Amino acid sequence: MTSPHHGTTLVLGGARSGKSGFAERLAADTGLDRHYIATGRAFDDEMRTRIDTHRTSRGDLWTTHEEPFDLVGRLAAIDAAGRVVLVDCLTLWVTNLMLEARDVAAESARLVAGLPALCASVIFVSNEVGLGMVPDNRMARDFRDHAGRLHQQVAAQARDVYFVAAGLPLKMKG
Amino acid sequence: MTSPHHGTTLVLGGARSGKSGFAERLAADTGLDRHYIATGRAFDDEMRTRIDTHRTSRGDLWTTHEEPFDLVGRLAAIDAAGRVVLVDCLTLWVTNLMLEARDVAAESARLVAGLPALCASVIFVSNEVGLGMVPDNRMARDFRDHAGRLHQQVAAQARDVYFVAAGLPLKMKG
Amino acid sequence: MTSPHHGTTLVLGGARSGKSGFAERLAADTGLDRHYIATGRAFDDEMRTRIDTHRTSRGDLWTTHEEPFDLVGRLAAIDAAGRVVLVDCLTLWVTNLMLEARDVAAESARLVAGLPALCASVIFVSNEVGLGMVPDNRMARDFRDHAGRLHQQVAAQARDVYFVAAGLPLKMKG
Repeated sequence: MTSPHHGTTLVLGGARSGKSGFAERLAADTGLDRHYIATGRAFDDEMRTRIDTHRTSRGDLWTTHEEPFDLVGRLAAIDAAGRVVLVDCLTLWVTNLMLEARDVAAESARLVAGLPALCASVIFVSNEVGLGMVPDNRMARDFRDHAGRLHQQVAAQARDVYFVAAGLPLKMKG
Repeated sequence: MTSPHHGTTLVLGGARSGKSGFAERLAADTGLDRHYIATGRAFDDEMRTRIDTHRTSRGDLWTTHEEPFDLVGRLAAIDAAGRVVLVDCLTLWVTNLMLEARDVAAESARLVAGLPALCASVIFVSNEVGLGMVPDNRMARDFRDHAGRLHQQVAAQARDVYFVAAGLPLKMKG
Repeated sequence: MTSPHHGTTLVLGGARSGKSGFAERLAADTGLDRHYIATGRAFDDEMRTRIDTHRTSRGDLWTTHEEPFDLVGRLAAIDAAGRVVLVDCLTLWVTNLMLEARDVAAESARLVAGLPALCASVIFVSNEVGLGMVPDNRMARDFRDHAGRLHQQVAAQARDVYFVAAGLPLKMKG
């Protein structure tokens, strides 16, 4: 009997939209062995508290990996049939790449190009950040552009795409 | 003959999305006796104008209450079968609580816990504020977190949840 | 044989949501003669680059017009059966009007009032900007109000309204 393969899923939502909780339930529902890639880095106590709160709420059923930069390498290293990998979240990954002056467009393209070959099911969580006012500073506008382009690319590859608001998922694709 | 009871409804939307107008039409469609709880306070002329414009556009078919803080107490005082209560809006209520350094999480929990016992139908209007860039200052981030958590809690209790954009409702639950 | 007439379409979305690309595909699918009204003005290199990138990606199948202010006049001048006119975008038009201290409400009303009489099919692209935090400054709040009201008015007139996120359209009307 082969494990079910769910391909790529994208879960988009705003801050405190319940997108991570929804993605975790999607992962649990697969019945697969659960891996979690946290892209966030704890620069300060506020961030550390957010990360720890998330980890505690997930419980012991997950293997957690912290990976701020090399998402492609980490996905390759974890990849196996019978596994589901939740990546939380793409926007923090883009932030990390920008802070290190990496080529975000190239890294994004590499990530998306590698998705079809993965044996694991992958669920990406990401923040929709483009529905407010235009930011005053150039770096914030660039960030918004990078994030939006990456979302489009991942969504084009994904089998399922959800938009989450107030904890409720709206299926956009699949 | 008993009055229809519509339970709790949540109407989420952006600024100038038409969410209040949509909620008012929902309330009118119930055929119930209409009460309106305005949570906003007029600190300046701009805010007073916004409040007065809303009140005028509602007309004489509503009993209006101004209640910036004690939403739980006010709902209990108004509560009766055959009534629909429109609360506009939750985000202003959260703002008011924060400005007075109240415990927003505790107040939110108390509000949500009391909803199932109400005899009136209740429609909450609230601003979705989490789909733009991460705000620079801590208080704004806390506000976003409080609002987002409250939306999730109310949505979990609600029978119907709508997301409104450009005056058009998208049903997310119900 | 008469040309198909698709009336008015509104395509709303966030920054880098893929809304322009989606609108261009909608226009192509009509099979009509394609006209493009760019409302954006190039104040600096960043903006010029964004405009040029858009123009290049559209290719040679479009007649492009640059019209920062007189959208009503330009639509009237281009109007003809068998044509589809894509206006990209309404939020830049509102910005231009505000920077010149024009009466945005009056201009918006004039635009919307003229739509039913047009022989061409018209597709409006616009940025949803009301789903983030309340902006600190008055002009930004006014902009948000003008944009939101215009979206509601156009949506009320439109036959089809789409909300685009991550390149995926969600049909809100039609």
